[in-house]
Formats: sequence, structure tokens, C-alpha cells
Amino acid sequence: MMASSDRPRVAIVGATGLVGETFINVLEERGFPMSSLTLMASARSAGKRLTAMGDEHEVIEATPDAFEDIDIALFSAGGGSSKQLAPEAAKRGAVVVDNSSAWRMEPDVPLVVPEVNPDDALNHNGIIANPNCSTIQMVVALWPLHRENPIKRVIVDTYQSASGAGRLALEEMLEQSRGVLNGEQAQPSAFPHRIAFNAIPQIDVFEEDDYTKEEIKMVRETQKIMHAPEIAVSATCVRIPAAFAHSEAVHVEFTNPITPDEARDILAAAPGIVVTDNPSASAYPMAIDAQGRDEVFVGRIRRDTALDNGISMWVVSDNIRKGAATNTIQIAELLAKGAPAAAAR
Amino acid sequence: MMASSDRPRVAIVGATGLVGETFINVLEERGFPMSSLTLMASARSAGKRLTAMGDEHEVIEATPDAFEDIDIALFSAGGGSSKQLAPEAAKRGAVVVDNSSAWRMEPDVPLVVPEVNPDDALNHNGIIANPNCSTIQMVVALWPLHRENPIKRVIVDTYQSASGAGRLALEEMLEQSRGVLNGEQAQPSAFPHRIAFNAIPQIDVFEEDDYTKEEIKMVRETQKIMHAPEIAVSATCVRIPAAFAHSEAVHVEFTNPITPDEARDILAAAPGIVVTDNPSASAYPMAIDAQGRDEVFVGRIRRDTALDNGISMWVVSDNIRKGAATNTIQIAELLAKGAPAAAAR
Repeated sequence: MMASSDRPRVAIVGATGLVGETFINVLEERGFPMSSLTLMASARSAGKRLTAMGDEHEVIEATPDAFEDIDIALFSAGGGSSKQLAPEAAKRGAVVVDNSSAWRMEPDVPLVVPEVNPDDALNHNGIIANPNCSTIQMVVALWPLHRENPIKRVIVDTYQSASGAGRLALEEMLEQSRGVLNGEQAQPSAFPHRIAFNAIPQIDVFEEDDYTKEEIKMVRETQKIMHAPEIAVSATCVRIPAAFAHSEAVHVEFTNPITPDEARDILAAAPGIVVTDNPSASAYPMAIDAQGRDEVFVGRIRRDTALDNGISMWVVSDNIRKGAATNTIQIAELLAKGAPAAAAR
Repeated sequence: MMASSDRPRVAIVGATGLVGETFINVLEERGFPMSSLTLMASARSAGKRLTAMGDEHEVIEATPDAFEDIDIALFSAGGGSSKQLAPEAAKRGAVVVDNSSAWRMEPDVPLVVPEVNPDDALNHNGIIANPNCSTIQMVVALWPLHRENPIKRVIVDTYQSASGAGRLALEEMLEQSRGVLNGEQAQPSAFPHRIAFNAIPQIDVFEEDDYTKEEIKMVRETQKIMHAPEIAVSATCVRIPAAFAHSEAVHVEFTNPITPDEARDILAAAPGIVVTDNPSASAYPMAIDAQGRDEVFVGRIRRDTALDNGISMWVVSDNIRKGAATNTIQIAELLAKGAPAAAAR
């Protein structure tokens, strides 16, 4: 997209949110090459001051004209704002990398996980979608296995942290936990029910066939990212009282026989994955260890006793980092580089 | 076993534990017909005084001779004590209903869930085993479906509460949560890692093929209780920071086609089950609602999108009540009645 001498002008839309704030940290940590950084948010948050790259920045209101001098716009502002503002930004020459679900399933919008389908990132019309957090961590683990041995079906049950519902939801979970420990009655607001010391089998709204939108995302986005509509996926998405990082129990049926050792070797050699799998030492991935990390952690790799050619595994990753901010910035890096490292399909 | 005029003399072994205490409550609530109640525990807890049936009882040490005048002994004292004391009690004429895993897979020990295989309870040699908590609630939901349409495979991922590991573990989870909220470092003791705001994919020790003992129980006990060794079962058992009641995401493949409505009707008509399944009102079973209840709650009943003739469902029950104390006392009721109500196979 642009020569390295011509560093992009970057905007963050939704800069005051959990993901927006993490965009800033990840850009800093990775030394993302940019010539300027503009922080945007809704009118309500405009005027706030945030520190980024060692400087104080004033958050400006995200309006169509605010994108006039932007090359890459990292959006984490919710579906409504994305639907309205992303085309305006694209029209003005910016490439939007969007975290909402607004554009993901549009046929002409690439849905990209750099470890899986980096080539897709360059085939855009101004908008690239960042997948759902639960989907990202799962496909990072599925893809290297699928390349060796085509996957036929996937059954996944998730253990998703409160931060996936945003900053207020995270605070509600923590404050509600404190309240319940003190014998107080919970007053759910961000979640449909009390989340403290509970498990809620609903994330997002219910859609067709009594599946939630989150569950349907895990099916359709997996198929789109992996260019594999033939893979049958079934998901139950559950909110638990964890703060950061989602955990997933993933059961996979392959076309051909595969041993746990083979799966372990493939995963250990794959980009973006750390295999943590030493049962005798009680070593396996856990949410509290994945928090703040960018990798996808995989463990509990074993033969699935109910599926033919089956493997079960436990997949954990920080939903705010790899599941949102880091993946988005990895996409921006593909754009800034102009050509993907061809992680190969 | 005995006429109703001849009420059994009942002992509780492990009376000071979470399950032992719940035995007392459930016996009271159900008006269990007995002529006497003896509370027993290890030497360490002997001498404690507990209120039961409106009277104060002194807890006596569980020794072989203590079972001389006992007809039914309800054990929840851990595998070691059961292994040693259950045969002594049986030798002295008591029928033991044991909550530990010590006897469950012995060929001549029936493993009973009264909603599923009540007939098995009468075919004992002095010891009857109460299944694992996670298994009980699952088979209550599977059995009525299996009778209509034989099950081929089951994939289950659990969300198990801290109380399943005992009273100290429950207290550790709650106190640790308070500590983490106050910025303190966690000091795990009852669990292998910090459980507060985390998910631990390990319950009990690891055994063959990198499966935990808890996961293997869910496979073998399900097959034994349902008299169906042909059903392939795969489980991932996970501890989450809930206090009481286990939740389970269950994916079932049937021999013949089945619709969610058919499954819902079968479950709603089955004994011991409450169907809570109204997605548009965010109504589904949850741990905090199942706490203190004896039923198995089933919801999120829908077509499984990855399995042939598949149904997914969400199954929740109080692990201390239906998963332990209540199921044990239901077995004792079968004994006291002498002949099962033939819930039919």
C-alpha cells in the first residue's frame, strides 16, 4: 500500500474503549511504523486526553471528515458506528480495519487472521474485517492442522471472559463479585443475568434456530477465514466470571487418522501458537496466564474418544489482545508492508 | 428390604462434610422413614455436635463395629474410608450407599441413578454406588432421549463449581476471589492453580491417554448406568469459579433423526427434569438458579450443527444435591421401599 519511507497516518476509532486503549499499547509495543496517530471516539468521549507514544493526545469526534488525512483507521466502535463511518473513511482513502461484526460476512470484505489467510488482506475495497475474538483463537489452532489433514467437523464450547463485553461489563463482573461476597443482591445491567459465581449460556442476542449471534459467528467466520464452507461447526458460547482471556474446549474430526503427538508437533511449529501441554505437571493453558499475551495457547491435546480421527484440545487466548487489538494491528502491518509474508494456503 | 412398619436405622458417614450435612437436610425435607439416625465421621471430627431432625446428635467415630445396628449407611467420606469401611458395614448387615468412586466400576456393585436404572439398586451385595456428580445430571437428561432414539455419541464440556471439591475448596474459591479483588496474590491449596476469575481444565488427577479421572468417570459411568457400552463419550471437565451447581454443554448424536421440539417434549415429560428453554426471554438453566434444587435443568435445546441427527443442550444441576446427597437418598428410598417403581428400561 505504501513504501516504508511513506509511513501511514493512523487513526484509532473508539480510542477510549478497552480495545481502543489496547490498540495504543500494541502499536507502541510492536513499534508500528506510522507518521501520525489520531484518536477518535463518539461525541460523548471527544475532548478526553489520552497518552499515546509518550505524548498526550486529545480525542476528537469521529466524523466523516475526520478521515480526510488518514491512511489506516483501526475501528473498535461498535457495529452501528462502523456501519456508518467505515464507508465514509474508505471513501476518503483510508483503509479501515474494523473490529465490529458489521462487515465480516460481506462477500467483498476480507475477514483476516494473519496466521491463516494473510493474502486476503490485500484484496479489499477499503474495509477489512477483524473476526470475532472466539473465532480468531480457534482458527489459529485449527488452520495448521487443517492444512495437514482436512477437518470435517468441529464442536466447540467456550468459557468467555467478562472483558469480551467491554469495559463496563468487566467492571460489573468484578463489582458484582465483591457485592455477592458481601451478601448483596446482584443488579445485572451489562449481562442478562448475574455473572458473579455463575455461568451464562448466552453471548449476544438469539438468532435463527435458537443459536446466539456469537455462536453463529463461530460457525460462519471459521468457514470464511479458512475458505472451508464444508467444515461443520457447532458452538455453545458461555460467559464465565473470568476477567480477561477466553478458553475453549475444541473437539475436531479429521479426514484421516492423526495422533495427539502429531497434532502437538504441528501446533508447536505453527505461527502464533504456544503449546502448553504437560498434564503430569498440571501444565495447560489458563485464562490468568494468557492475559496480556498475544499468542494462542493450546494444551490438553488428546485423542477425542467420541469422534472418528478425533482430537480434543483446550485453546486459550487474550480476547482483547489476539482476539481484537493485536490481530487488527497484525492486519495493519500486512497493509503497511504491502505484501503478505504468504503464510501459505 | 424391610416392611414399612420396620423403619431402617440410618447412618451418615462423613456427616461433617458438605455432602454429609446435605444428607441431613434432604432426609428431613423428604421425610425419609427411619427409626434412628447415627452420625459418623473420622476420629478427627468425632465428638462434634450437629442438629438433625430437630435433635442434637453427637458425631461418633466411624469404626467397623459402629455399623452393628445400622440398616442403611450413607457414605460420603472419600474413597479411602469407603474402601476400608464399606465392606465392614456390609458384613454387619448394613446396605451401604457410597458417594466415593471406590466401588463404582466393580462389576458386582450397582451404580444407580433412580430416574435411569432403579432396578439395579435391588441387585446388590451390600454396597451400592452413587455416581459422579457430573455424570448423574447428564444421564438424567440422556436416558429419556436414548430410550426413544438410541444415542451413538456424546461430547460434553463441563463448567463445574468449586463445591464439587469439598467445603475447603469452596471456601478457598470465595476467599481467593475476595483476595484477588483486593489485589492480593492467590495461594492455591485445594485447587492446582488459582481458581478465582479463571477456568482450570483439570478435575482430579490425570490418568491414561491424558484424560483426567473425572473425564474418564463421565465416559465409563455413563455407559454402566445406561447399560450402553456402545455409546462413545468424550468429556472435558473444567472447574470454574461458581459456588454450587455444575453446568454442562452436551452434544448428542442419535441413531435416527430428531427435532429440537421432539427432544424438548421428551425431556419435559421425563422424571427429575425441568426444561427451562425460552431463548427470547433469556431463559435457560443457570448454576445460581439450580443451587439448592433437586431437579436437573435442561435448556438451549437445539439442532447440533456439526453432528448427524444431533441435538445440543445445556444441562445444570446442584452437584451437592442431585449430584450427591439427593441421588443417594433416592437410592435409599428404593431400598426402603423394597421394590423400585420400575422407571422402566
